[in-house]
Amino acid sequence: MSLIYVLDLCAVSICAITATLEARRSELDLFGVAVIAVIAGIGGGTVRDLLLGRLPVYWVHDATYVAVGLGAGVLTFFLARRLRLPKNFFLIPDALGMALFTVIGTSIALQAGAPWLIAALMGMVTAVFGGVIRDILCNEVPLVLRTDIYATASLAGASLLIGLDALGVGHDLAVLSAMLGTVAIRLAAIRWHIHLPRLRDEG
Amino acid sequence: MSLIYVLDLCAVSICAITATLEARRSELDLFGVAVIAVIAGIGGGTVRDLLLGRLPVYWVHDATYVAVGLGAGVLTFFLARRLRLPKNFFLIPDALGMALFTVIGTSIALQAGAPWLIAALMGMVTAVFGGVIRDILCNEVPLVLRTDIYATASLAGASLLIGLDALGVGHDLAVLSAMLGTVAIRLAAIRWHIHLPRLRDEG
Amino acid sequence: MSLIYVLDLCAVSICAITATLEARRSELDLFGVAVIAVIAGIGGGTVRDLLLGRLPVYWVHDATYVAVGLGAGVLTFFLARRLRLPKNFFLIPDALGMALFTVIGTSIALQAGAPWLIAALMGMVTAVFGGVIRDILCNEVPLVLRTDIYATASLAGASLLIGLDALGVGHDLAVLSAMLGTVAIRLAAIRWHIHLPRLRDEG
Repeated sequence: MSLIYVLDLCAVSICAITATLEARRSELDLFGVAVIAVIAGIGGGTVRDLLLGRLPVYWVHDATYVAVGLGAGVLTFFLARRLRLPKNFFLIPDALGMALFTVIGTSIALQAGAPWLIAALMGMVTAVFGGVIRDILCNEVPLVLRTDIYATASLAGASLLIGLDALGVGHDLAVLSAMLGTVAIRLAAIRWHIHLPRLRDEG
Repeated sequence: MSLIYVLDLCAVSICAITATLEARRSELDLFGVAVIAVIAGIGGGTVRDLLLGRLPVYWVHDATYVAVGLGAGVLTFFLARRLRLPKNFFLIPDALGMALFTVIGTSIALQAGAPWLIAALMGMVTAVFGGVIRDILCNEVPLVLRTDIYATASLAGASLLIGLDALGVGHDLAVLSAMLGTVAIRLAAIRWHIHLPRLRDEG
Repeated sequence: MSLIYVLDLCAVSICAITATLEARRSELDLFGVAVIAVIAGIGGGTVRDLLLGRLPVYWVHDATYVAVGLGAGVLTFFLARRLRLPKNFFLIPDALGMALFTVIGTSIALQAGAPWLIAALMGMVTAVFGGVIRDILCNEVPLVLRTDIYATASLAGASLLIGLDALGVGHDLAVLSAMLGTVAIRLAAIRWHIHLPRLRDEG
């Protein structure tokens, strides 16, 4: 069991936990919350695999991913009724998970021979599409399309990984730098309320 | 033409009919209703085939599925303007169709070598994702995520099928028991208003 | 670089431009608009490729499609804050793009050996599903399901192409006739407010 596999499972469970906490606003029952949690955890990688044609998708022959997402979601469901966590408790784990999904997705797309723009896109898809599907199911405009630097941090991290790889930097160093870059941009955007221009800014 | 094929087409048309009746709330035109009806009928199996990599999806080389869904939807569209059916008219056919989709999806996933948890999930995806996509298109939080034991009945039936198969019970008997179990749980949940805990139960 | 390739890229950019203009109602930031623009441009062909099993999807190994959609979206984002275009400026380009997507999608499905009904469906999916996903992300009931003859024009054009092909008419002539037919039906529907019956007409 490699380090990256364990980290990947951690990222899945973080997505499942935050999705369960977010789902509190909707009128979901336990089953709905479990579905949302699993989809938030594995949805991004699933869309990536579909687009790249890596089928069956990665979790079909390894039930651990679904089991971990399910477990994290159900556990959070029951704990969330008792426990009140500080609002920002998951900001840093979430940023780390997002960074990991980004480098995994980008690496897979590069190995599949995708050009740079597409590889960066696949990193971003892996990192944010779980949340996009979660928000669509909860009938909301996906958070990632309207708020601060989230997907943008993922894109920047993916580009950094591709650039360092192209420069011949060792893969491990490139991955580490890309993850650090992603997390730094994400946390800086939260800390200083950096955001991209909006269509309605002048209206 | 096998029995399972005919039953499958019946299940597709039941999904198309109930989707057309549900769509009455939205401001869809005839085309929109036809699309919703077809998607409700074949959407679940389509998502299953995509995830398992069984491509092209099952209805691409057999137009009967789309034709049956289309026909059932359009017919219901015109009849629904004249006829008023009792609200619960389709409860039992719908439960039967859901049970059939569950055993078909689970069997296909088992044949594809998926582990038990994933096979049960695929049965449930086949049974409920047509309705999930229908509700997303109608801009509603999918019914299946917020109401009574629907997908849960499907999951239970899929687990029953997998368990009986593993015990070496004959496949036909396992399929029949799983379908009966699914229908029984679904109808019991409706009859006695059984539902899973909700996040908001405590206010 | 063939003519059809250039026209295809034009159709992608038209979809991206109109999606950006439509997105003005939602509270999207620059990133969200870029995503919506790209998805509107390539979403229809992506769904077609997934269903037909033509994987990886067509834009994975040719980044031009994504780049063109991205460029058109971002450019429109900044111009749209300054420029006020007449409301109907894009009606004819949009109808042309829709007609082109229809004949491309139908031709690809016919080559893949799909029966007629499915080939027509794939033409329509290619033409309208970019817009459907765009509307789902913007949390609206897809326009195409509730308004005037849009997808219907696409279906009619696809059927015309299939019919003329079956009659042994030369492929170029069939394609041209199908595109003209699609555009004519679409513009006629706009001009004379033709629409399909609705479920609520009598209610």
